[in-house]
Amino acid sequence: MTVKVEFHFDFGSPNAYLAHLVIPDIERRAGVQFEYVPVLLGGVFKATNNVSPAVSLQGVKNKGEYQQLETQRFLEKHGITRYARNPFFPVNTLKIMRGAIAAQKLGVFEKYVDEVYRHMWAEPKKMDELDVIRAAYEASGLPADDLIEGMEDTGVKAKLIANTEDSVARGVFGSPSFFVGKELYFGKDRLGEVEEEIEAQKR
Amino acid sequence: MTVKVEFHFDFGSPNAYLAHLVIPDIERRAGVQFEYVPVLLGGVFKATNNVSPAVSLQGVKNKGEYQQLETQRFLEKHGITRYARNPFFPVNTLKIMRGAIAAQKLGVFEKYVDEVYRHMWAEPKKMDELDVIRAAYEASGLPADDLIEGMEDTGVKAKLIANTEDSVARGVFGSPSFFVGKELYFGKDRLGEVEEEIEAQKR
Repeated sequence: MTVKVEFHFDFGSPNAYLAHLVIPDIERRAGVQFEYVPVLLGGVFKATNNVSPAVSLQGVKNKGEYQQLETQRFLEKHGITRYARNPFFPVNTLKIMRGAIAAQKLGVFEKYVDEVYRHMWAEPKKMDELDVIRAAYEASGLPADDLIEGMEDTGVKAKLIANTEDSVARGVFGSPSFFVGKELYFGKDRLGEVEEEIEAQKR
Repeated sequence: MTVKVEFHFDFGSPNAYLAHLVIPDIERRAGVQFEYVPVLLGGVFKATNNVSPAVSLQGVKNKGEYQQLETQRFLEKHGITRYARNPFFPVNTLKIMRGAIAAQKLGVFEKYVDEVYRHMWAEPKKMDELDVIRAAYEASGLPADDLIEGMEDTGVKAKLIANTEDSVARGVFGSPSFFVGKELYFGKDRLGEVEEEIEAQKR
C-alpha cells in the first residue's frame, strides 16, 4: 500500500533544514518519497497565535542552551556538517517561499529546495533581499528571472496562502511538521516516529 | 563502570509521572538504578523565568491538541493505563515535595514516590490540602504524622531549596529532567536517548 508522507516546510526554520538533510535516508530505507509542501511559517504563527522558539526562549534561563545542545546532538547523530547558523536570522521568507511555488510550476522544485536551503543554512545569506536572492539563484543555475517574476504571480501568491491555511486546518502550528497519512508529527526529533508510522501504514 | 542516572522530578508534572512509569523498564534493561531527586518545579520556573506548558500553550491554536496527541501516543506505546488527568491541576506541590524529602529521611522514599504519584495521576486528588494529603498517606500505609511533621522541618525545607537550586545550576528549566552523568535530557520523549547514553557510558 502506498503511504502518503508530507513535509510542510519553510526555509526560515533551521530545524526544518536539519530534517531536510535526514529525509533522504528515511526515503531510501522506507522506500517512500516525501512530498514537500511549501507553507509560510509566519502565516502559520499568525493563524495559531504561536511564536518561534527564538521568541519564546527569550529571557528564559537554560532552555536556549539546552536547545543548542539538542541541535548539537542531532548533528552528531546524523553526521551533519553542512550547517551554519544564519547570521541574518530571522530572515523574512515570503519571497523565497513564493519562489518555491513558482519553482513547482517551472519544474525545478527539487533543485530549488536543495539550493535555497544551502543558501539559507549551509552558506547562509540574507535571503529576503531580492538582489541577494537573484545572485543565489544564478549561482545555483536556477532560472532567476522566471522565479522572481513568478513571485509576483497572483496564482503563486494564492497557492502559498492556500497551502498555509490548509496546513493549519490540519493541525500544524510550527515547523518542521510531517504528515504520514493523516497523522501529524512535529519537530525534527519525531523523524524516528515518522519512519515507524510509515512502516506501520505500509502493512 | 557505574553510570550515575538522575531523575529530577516534581509530582506536579504529568509528563514526569509518565516518565516514572517507564523508568523501571529502562532500569531493568540497562541494569542501572535512577536516583530520584525531588525538586520544586515552581522554584525552577521562578529561577529560569520559564513557564509550564499549561501557561505557554494558552491561546495557541493546534499546539495543545498536538501535545494531547503526543501524550496519547506515549500511553499507547508503553501500554500505560494508570493515568488520569488531575481535575485540580495545577496542584501546588510544595507540601508533597517537602514530604518527599521527609520520606527520604524516614526511609520510606521509594514507596512515597510510587504512592504520591498514584494519588496525583492515577486516582487524582487535590494534593495541596493537608487533610487530603493526610488521608492519602494513611490510605497508602505511609507514616502520615511523621511526614507532615517533617514538612515543617527547617532541614527538610532547606534541602528541597538546595536540590532545586543545584538542578537549575546544572541546566534544568522544566520537568521531567534527567542526567546521565553530566548529560542533561529534558522531556519524557528523551527516555530513548537517556537509555542510549547509559549504554554508551557503560562502555
